[in-house]
Amino acid sequence: MPPDDVRRHRRARSSEVISSPANQVVRLVRALGRRKAREETGQFVVEGERGLADALDAGVRPHVIVVRDDYVAGTDRLDALLAGDEVDVRRLDTALFDDLCETVHPQGILGVLPLPAATALPDDATLVVYLDGIRDPGNMGTLLRSSAAAGADAVLVGSGSVDPYNAKVVRSAMGAHFRIPILAADTVPMERLQALPIRAIAEADADRTYDGVDWRQPSLLIVGSEAVGPGETGRALANLAIAIPMTSGVESLNAGVAGSIVLFEIARQRRIGSPRALK
Amino acid sequence: MPPDDVRRHRRARSSEVISSPANQVVRLVRALGRRKAREETGQFVVEGERGLADALDAGVRPHVIVVRDDYVAGTDRLDALLAGDEVDVRRLDTALFDDLCETVHPQGILGVLPLPAATALPDDATLVVYLDGIRDPGNMGTLLRSSAAAGADAVLVGSGSVDPYNAKVVRSAMGAHFRIPILAADTVPMERLQALPIRAIAEADADRTYDGVDWRQPSLLIVGSEAVGPGETGRALANLAIAIPMTSGVESLNAGVAGSIVLFEIARQRRIGSPRALK
Repeated sequence: MPPDDVRRHRRARSSEVISSPANQVVRLVRALGRRKAREETGQFVVEGERGLADALDAGVRPHVIVVRDDYVAGTDRLDALLAGDEVDVRRLDTALFDDLCETVHPQGILGVLPLPAATALPDDATLVVYLDGIRDPGNMGTLLRSSAAAGADAVLVGSGSVDPYNAKVVRSAMGAHFRIPILAADTVPMERLQALPIRAIAEADADRTYDGVDWRQPSLLIVGSEAVGPGETGRALANLAIAIPMTSGVESLNAGVAGSIVLFEIARQRRIGSPRALK
Repeated sequence: MPPDDVRRHRRARSSEVISSPANQVVRLVRALGRRKAREETGQFVVEGERGLADALDAGVRPHVIVVRDDYVAGTDRLDALLAGDEVDVRRLDTALFDDLCETVHPQGILGVLPLPAATALPDDATLVVYLDGIRDPGNMGTLLRSSAAAGADAVLVGSGSVDPYNAKVVRSAMGAHFRIPILAADTVPMERLQALPIRAIAEADADRTYDGVDWRQPSLLIVGSEAVGPGETGRALANLAIAIPMTSGVESLNAGVAGSIVLFEIARQRRIGSPRALK
């Protein structure tokens, strides 16, 4: 729904409490639970105050904000936003709102936001993360969050991965969507990635340890699924396999945690200006 | 339910398909969803083949194994176990089994296991993890799994934390329960912990970076909740606050990931035999 269309009716509607599941905004939010609808409309849903604050911090203006009938803004900024003219606000019947949310204990506020424009890989990128076959939304969210926090320049999402704009991913990424470019891997020319001197793939049985790499060089970190590892594209790109040594052969880590450990080793080396002596 | 009690009726019952929710084993499994019942009976439930394999690897014998009517063992070992005499096996009606499971897509097998005996802190412990106020089961599971994988000697669980034998914790810890001693923090004398020279608490705004500590010394790592940080006991124990530097002030990590990053920096220093030069 284009914002202009919505705004025209704002004043008339904003004080009404919507209780019909057939309402246009209700149907839009529900439709955005599906990847296809997100891609077709170029919008996605962010639930909760923290998520919306992250969007506002990044200068992203919601197309519509939907609040539960009993919602009281938890921050002055949200309060001002709801009272002001800038954003279309709709008020929903309590049961209808809760039913619409994917969270178990909804905070009573959600926003429909524009999908970040698909930007190109930054020219000067020195740390790119390639998520290849990450199907678990929690792991995807963790990896987006850790990538942003560790200072990566972009995250590429391979075709076998969960949609990064899935509601569970958005929730666990805690605003990373607004702080790091997220690109479909197949929109980035392979030559750009092949030009990065370190192209490391995390694999449980690799000989090289993850901290035995000089990560100060421009790097691509490829993280695959816990169950089956990275896909063909990831494997074709890699020129190095790395492992995280663990106490016993039985141990393993999930892809979100393993990827985060490597990302912060990269950040650590770049911060202190040297890797440990390479073997 | 003591195993002997069960075993007496095994042969007669194991070929029957149980369909009554009032069945004694069904009621036991359901009751074990509550912490109180776990503590009173000294048992907990492990769902899925991987979890049961971890228990068997650790030499833990299930008191009862419950399978769904259509279950076919995915490994030879489980197949042999189900066919053999060693463990009491019950077969449940499909709908009843699925209703009993906390997982969304149950694999069709679960076991009732003895709670690991509360052991004391190992005398020669050089890395102890103190989880103080970790309420999210996923984070607790991650921290148990990372503690085992990074070579910690024990995990202490503070009173404000989720029960480590909660089904979600057990699921996400991927067998760590059988590989590392997990103790209630209040069973360990404070003097034992105060004797560890490094007692570090993870805090977002600490001046000291997590990699600027010589972790080769005997250490206590205190991890608190993402929302409110560690509790009073954790704070009282700490002699050092550490932070994980991040790209921008906006960023943060969840307690499970942050704790894992510190744990693997500790493992890294101990493996390579030196920390980076301390500031």
